[in-house]
Amino acid sequence: MDSETSKRLSELIHKERVAHLGTLRGEAPMVGMTLFIPMSDFSLFYVHVSRLAWHTQDMEKDPRVALSIAETDDGRPDPFTLMRVTIRGTAERIPNDDRLVPDLKVAWLSRFPEQAINFTLADFSFWKIAPRDARFIAGFGKIHNLSAKELAAAGAP
Amino acid sequence: MDSETSKRLSELIHKERVAHLGTLRGEAPMVGMTLFIPMSDFSLFYVHVSRLAWHTQDMEKDPRVALSIAETDDGRPDPFTLMRVTIRGTAERIPNDDRLVPDLKVAWLSRFPEQAINFTLADFSFWKIAPRDARFIAGFGKIHNLSAKELAAAGAP
Repeated sequence: MDSETSKRLSELIHKERVAHLGTLRGEAPMVGMTLFIPMSDFSLFYVHVSRLAWHTQDMEKDPRVALSIAETDDGRPDPFTLMRVTIRGTAERIPNDDRLVPDLKVAWLSRFPEQAINFTLADFSFWKIAPRDARFIAGFGKIHNLSAKELAAAGAP
Repeated sequence: MDSETSKRLSELIHKERVAHLGTLRGEAPMVGMTLFIPMSDFSLFYVHVSRLAWHTQDMEKDPRVALSIAETDDGRPDPFTLMRVTIRGTAERIPNDDRLVPDLKVAWLSRFPEQAINFTLADFSFWKIAPRDARFIAGFGKIHNLSAKELAAAGAP
């Protein structure tokens, strides 16, 4: 991946606020919209989810996930040219008393200030997704299969 | 689901052009962005995909899919309030010489006029997704689990 492509991937991940989280539900595919924040070097992706959400229940049973992030549809004539990346990896719940949580909360609320209420609800927790690999589609036919290390290289400043 | 909620679901599905398609890949979750068109009564959803795409290869091996459609992120303070629906079902390839294909092509190009080139490529086909159920999140805590029949009721005029 050249530096221009790498930069586009980085901008995509930093700009978009919404992802679609794929999990296994009864061994079949399930996908649901979620919010996310990336660690700055893309070595981890965080979601803050309720135990009442299906994807949370799914991750508790099987940690394998896929996180799909696409450029927001801007109404362009051909939406097939929207950039998108799928990160496949493993999800792990972060206990609410983990020492990382206060910093994560600051980062989360900095991005999603209206989400403060969810931190008052006992059923919400952070989960971290550790990437195994990524597939970046930078446009029609411009497909890049990346290792976790190559993904992190795109995140590095 | 009351008639107002039903209307919102119908508008969501008709308005959005982009979905995230969940498949199984090596028995693990995979999700990728796709374009779609719904049959007017939501009894089927169509995608036009290349055999080179991972989700197509996945569907050839296991027809179970989930199609996640979310309201476009409009930059609102709290993107968690974006409406979204996940349709779970079974995918089946439509042969390129099927008698339905000409009409589907007209419908597809009416929505995605820039996609004409894909109909000149041998590796693209329509697939139909028959819903088994749907989960509509109309806002924070407003969750509706729908049977395929209830989904179709939202699509009916």
